[in-house]
Amino acid sequence: MPPLPIPMPTDLSTLLMAMDLVGVFVFGLSGGTLAVRKKLDLVGVMVLSLAAALAGGVVRDLLIGALPPASLGDDRYLLAALAAGLAAFLFHRPINRLGKPVMVLDAAGLGLFTVAGCSKALAYGLSPLPAALLGVMTACGGGAVRDLLVAEVPRVLREEIYAMAALLGAVVVIAGQRLELPPVPVAVVGVLAVFTLRVVSVLRGWSAPRAPGS
Amino acid sequence: MPPLPIPMPTDLSTLLMAMDLVGVFVFGLSGGTLAVRKKLDLVGVMVLSLAAALAGGVVRDLLIGALPPASLGDDRYLLAALAAGLAAFLFHRPINRLGKPVMVLDAAGLGLFTVAGCSKALAYGLSPLPAALLGVMTACGGGAVRDLLVAEVPRVLREEIYAMAALLGAVVVIAGQRLELPPVPVAVVGVLAVFTLRVVSVLRGWSAPRAPGS
Amino acid sequence: MPPLPIPMPTDLSTLLMAMDLVGVFVFGLSGGTLAVRKKLDLVGVMVLSLAAALAGGVVRDLLIGALPPASLGDDRYLLAALAAGLAAFLFHRPINRLGKPVMVLDAAGLGLFTVAGCSKALAYGLSPLPAALLGVMTACGGGAVRDLLVAEVPRVLREEIYAMAALLGAVVVIAGQRLELPPVPVAVVGVLAVFTLRVVSVLRGWSAPRAPGS
Repeated sequence: MPPLPIPMPTDLSTLLMAMDLVGVFVFGLSGGTLAVRKKLDLVGVMVLSLAAALAGGVVRDLLIGALPPASLGDDRYLLAALAAGLAAFLFHRPINRLGKPVMVLDAAGLGLFTVAGCSKALAYGLSPLPAALLGVMTACGGGAVRDLLVAEVPRVLREEIYAMAALLGAVVVIAGQRLELPPVPVAVVGVLAVFTLRVVSVLRGWSAPRAPGS
Repeated sequence: MPPLPIPMPTDLSTLLMAMDLVGVFVFGLSGGTLAVRKKLDLVGVMVLSLAAALAGGVVRDLLIGALPPASLGDDRYLLAALAAGLAAFLFHRPINRLGKPVMVLDAAGLGLFTVAGCSKALAYGLSPLPAALLGVMTACGGGAVRDLLVAEVPRVLREEIYAMAALLGAVVVIAGQRLELPPVPVAVVGVLAVFTLRVVSVLRGWSAPRAPGS
Repeated sequence: MPPLPIPMPTDLSTLLMAMDLVGVFVFGLSGGTLAVRKKLDLVGVMVLSLAAALAGGVVRDLLIGALPPASLGDDRYLLAALAAGLAAFLFHRPINRLGKPVMVLDAAGLGLFTVAGCSKALAYGLSPLPAALLGVMTACGGGAVRDLLVAEVPRVLREEIYAMAALLGAVVVIAGQRLELPPVPVAVVGVLAVFTLRVVSVLRGWSAPRAPGS
């Protein structure tokens, strides 16, 4: 969720920030529209929007000791999440009708958050295995908190290819670092890998496997 | 929940500490009596009492990096919360009958926790928007965790004027700081604003708005 | 969950690490098998295994400011938890049939985690009351998070002697430190006290008390 901790030209940095804020907004929409469906009030809509958009990155920053969390240090993240909540509150019906475009933007957010989360964990000195898990948690944790706040089992634990798509992106980032490849192209490939696997899996109706005989 | 991080005369500081512990105790009662209603055992009653009383402040301290959290550094907070749990365990019936007095004390706790939480976040260098949100979270987070522990959607997300009353107090604190007004009177006004809005909204049966057409 | 922060001979340290990893694995099994029963997918099984095994220690380390948490700094903890998840995914039926051996190993984990958690909190300067609570939380928090992730009221709040057995071990550690007894024998007695009370309480069907008239 924060800008990638990688040296990069200003234009790319601006582009990434813009994409990051789009990711926050779309994740926020998923929280706000769920809150409206669950008949929560305005407070509930804003809280679920904030949680869905920012909780994954906040928990990652707590765990690596990057305090205060990035989304509390730059008002644009909070404002993007609150704007998503307000949009969901006012326009939940047209937003719910936009199933496919929202899914595509969500897949882009999934890729960005995974790669940013994994890269930040590596930059803070974590070894590859916990860094990969924190990358997945950055991207999937907000949605899990969103679902828990309405007392539901998180969807990410039950169905579809969501965390597994994120894991693919984390593996790309880790492999790129191990092979000492240049970080920016590796990040781009990582985001695209997550995005592609997620979108294809939705279109094809793929799901993660269940325990044999369960 | 911790004493306000503001220079103040000793008498006022003692008064605030006493009011703070009353807030912890009353919030703890809300957790303990809910646990009894949900047929939890003694462990559940004590845990819900601790969570309702202290979780909001603990999460705030985690997020601003004030470690260990204030309530783990001064035994009086833990003792007040545990005393509330024990009182709920032994005397849940008479406590449940005291609906209105408990609501009034809870409203006072809501005001104190909001103002203390927002002031502490500002003192740790956060900007106004995240500081206001952390103030609301300090006051409302414990009740949300309490409800989540019994697998219910937090009441604060669904009904009544609770987080919105807290938000009013946070706005008072932020405005006072911006206008460079003296902090003690501003804090008093902030607490009174939360208290008044909360009590009036309960007496009048006000609720936060729901999404149009939801 | 981390090695006890106590000077000790290498052999004992190795033994403790091995026991600690057994505790992580058995707690992980409780998460993984619950996930299979709840029809979660492979992601859900691995996440519940990680949560049950490691969340208690992670929250303790967050609260005392020991960052990054011990289980993110030594891959063996993550690998033990993931191995438990994989075992639960593949072999949930035979594991579920092993009720009593799993309960005995779980009781050993309960004792180890409590004593390690309480000792670490004391080593970080916390006073006895919060250190005892953090010891109990280290041992019981993972199971609580595991249950919350499937939208259930945590079992530890409802039934059996589980947190109370952990509390006994924390009291032993605190008393030993107060009386300046040598830490290693005190730790052994603490673990055995938790283990014995837990196993006996299961065999006898004891439960924690409920509120009178609830």
